[in-house]
Amino acid sequence: MIKNINTKKYNIKEIQNLVNKDLLQVNQIIEKNIGRKVPLIKNLSNHIFSAGGKRIRPLITLLTANLCKYKGNKHIALAACVELIHTATLLHDDVIDESKLRRGIPTANDVFGNKSSILVGDFLFSLAFELMVKNNSNPVLQILSKTSSTIAQGEVMQLSTIKNYKTSEYIYMKIIEAKTASLFSAASEISALISKSNKKAQNALKNYGKNLGIAFQLVDDALDYNGTSNMGKAIGDDFREGKITLPIIICISKANDKEKIFWKKTIESLKQNKSDFHKALQIIEKYNAVNLTLERAKKYSSKAIESLNIFSNSKVKSALESLAIIAIDRDK
Amino acid sequence: MIKNINTKKYNIKEIQNLVNKDLLQVNQIIEKNIGRKVPLIKNLSNHIFSAGGKRIRPLITLLTANLCKYKGNKHIALAACVELIHTATLLHDDVIDESKLRRGIPTANDVFGNKSSILVGDFLFSLAFELMVKNNSNPVLQILSKTSSTIAQGEVMQLSTIKNYKTSEYIYMKIIEAKTASLFSAASEISALISKSNKKAQNALKNYGKNLGIAFQLVDDALDYNGTSNMGKAIGDDFREGKITLPIIICISKANDKEKIFWKKTIESLKQNKSDFHKALQIIEKYNAVNLTLERAKKYSSKAIESLNIFSNSKVKSALESLAIIAIDRDK
Repeated sequence: MIKNINTKKYNIKEIQNLVNKDLLQVNQIIEKNIGRKVPLIKNLSNHIFSAGGKRIRPLITLLTANLCKYKGNKHIALAACVELIHTATLLHDDVIDESKLRRGIPTANDVFGNKSSILVGDFLFSLAFELMVKNNSNPVLQILSKTSSTIAQGEVMQLSTIKNYKTSEYIYMKIIEAKTASLFSAASEISALISKSNKKAQNALKNYGKNLGIAFQLVDDALDYNGTSNMGKAIGDDFREGKITLPIIICISKANDKEKIFWKKTIESLKQNKSDFHKALQIIEKYNAVNLTLERAKKYSSKAIESLNIFSNSKVKSALESLAIIAIDRDK
Repeated sequence: MIKNINTKKYNIKEIQNLVNKDLLQVNQIIEKNIGRKVPLIKNLSNHIFSAGGKRIRPLITLLTANLCKYKGNKHIALAACVELIHTATLLHDDVIDESKLRRGIPTANDVFGNKSSILVGDFLFSLAFELMVKNNSNPVLQILSKTSSTIAQGEVMQLSTIKNYKTSEYIYMKIIEAKTASLFSAASEISALISKSNKKAQNALKNYGKNLGIAFQLVDDALDYNGTSNMGKAIGDDFREGKITLPIIICISKANDKEKIFWKKTIESLKQNKSDFHKALQIIEKYNAVNLTLERAKKYSSKAIESLNIFSNSKVKSALESLAIIAIDRDK
C-alpha cells in the first residue's frame, strides 16, 4: 500500500542523527528555559523531558526546514516551541485521563500530583509563546496560536464525547485532527513560512503534517487495544475511561443486539467488571477492528508521503517519508 | 494616607460607564469567540463570564489607553485578551484550590468538573494568544507572553510554598507580584505601547498596574480571614489549604511558643479540627494581622496613584485613581 519510498528507509535514530546538531540545540533551549527560577518547574519538566520520547514533532520542523533549504536559525526555537506545546498538553492530558504511566515511567501527575502538572503545563505552554514571540513573524505566530486553540478545542470535544456511545466516526476524525494532527501540521507548515517557500510547498508541508498526525493518532488508538504492543503505556486506558476511539466505533457500528448491550453497559454507563476489557478485546478481534484502524492509519501515512511528491529527492525527504512509516510502525 | 486624589472619586459603576462602549465591545469579542464551535466551551465560559466580576483588568487597559490619548481600536481586543488570560487562570486556580464558590456562585469546576475546567482554561488561554497575535506588534506580544509565563511561575511558586511554615514575606511578595500584579502591570503598560507614548509614560503605567495588583492581592488575602466581608467567596480557604499569605506570615513572625505549635500543626501538618479556623482568627486579631495587611495594601494603592502623577488631570485619570482605591475598599 505504501508507495513513493524512493530512497533508503531510515530508523528513528538515523533520522535524529541527520539533524543531530539542531536537535541538541532544541534540547538546550528547552533545558535552559525550564530551569530558570522555580525548582518544582525544573524537576517536573526534567521528569517528563528526560523520559525521552522520539521528539517526532520537533524533528518534523527541523527536517522540513532543511527540506525547504532554510538557512537561518529560527527553526531551532520553533521546534522547541512545538515540543513545549506538545509537552504541556501531555501534562494536562495525563491529569484528565488519570494516567499512571507514560513512556514507560510513572506520569508526572503520579509523581508530582495533579496540581503541579496543571500549573507546570500552563508554564510550558506560556513559555512556548514567550519563545516564539521573541524572533518570529506574525504569520508563524498566527499558525501556532491558532493551533493551540485548536488543540484545546479538540481536547474539550473529546471530553464531551466520553461515554457517548453514539459518537460518530466523523466526530472522532474531527477530534483527532484537532487534538493531534493540527500540531503536526503546524510543525511542518511553519518551515515553509520561515524559509519563504511558495504556497504550493506550504500546502504540501501542511498536508504532510496533518496526514502524518492523523496516522499517528489512529495507531495510538489502535494500540490501546493491542495487548502485544509495548509503548510504555498501560493498555485499556481508553476503554476504562469510556473514551470513544475508532476500534470501538467500528465495533459499535457492527454490533449485534447482545454486543450493543455490552457497549452500552461498559462505555455509556461505564459499568465495567474485571473481565469486561478482555471481552471487549474479543469483540474487537471478531470485527478485526484494530487491524482496520491500522489500515486506516496506513492510508494517511501514504497520503503524508504523497504530499512530499513536489519536493525533489534527498536524504531529508527520505527521512520525512520514513517518519511517516515509523508513525504507523512504532517498533522501527 | 492616600493623597493625590484631585478629582471626584468614582465608584466602579461610574468607571465602567466612562468606557462603556469599549467595555461592551470587549464583552462582544469574548462572547463571539468562546461560542465558536464546542458547546461545552460555550457553556462553561458563559458560566464564569456571566457571573460578572468587576472587569478590573480590561478596565485598566481601556482607561489607560484613553489616558494615553490612543486613537485606534487595538485596546479593545487587548483588553479582551487580558480578561481571557485572567479567566483561564481563575479556572485553573479553582481546580488547584478545590474552590466551591466564586463571585457568589458555584465555581465552574464544581458545576462542570475539574477536567472541563482544565481544558476550557487551556482553550481560553490559547484564544487570548490567537486574538492578540492577530493585530498586534511584537513588543505588545512580548509583554503579554512573558506575563503569562510569569503568572504560571507565580502559581507554581505558590504551590511549592503550601504548608511551608517558613515561607518568608519576601517570597510571598515575589509570588503575588508574579501571579497577580504582573497581569495588572501588563494590562496597563500595553496602552503606552499601542499609543506610542514615551518611556516615562510606559514606566508610569507599568508601575501603576504593578502596585495596584499588589494592593489587590493583599486585600484578597486579608479578606480570606475577615468574617464580615462578603466577596462571594468562602472565607478560610487559604487556611484550610495551608496557603501561606501575609496575615499568617505576620502571626508566625510574632508567635509565642504555644502559637508556633498551633501554626505548625494546622499549616505545616495540615492537621485541623473544626475550631482551629476560629482559633486562627483569634490569633490574627491579637496581632492585628488583617489590618496590618490592609495597611500594606493601602501603601501600594497610594504608590499606584502616585505613579499617575506625570499625567495631567482628567476624568480618566481620576477613574484610574479611583480604581486604586476600590482595590483596597471593595465595597465602593
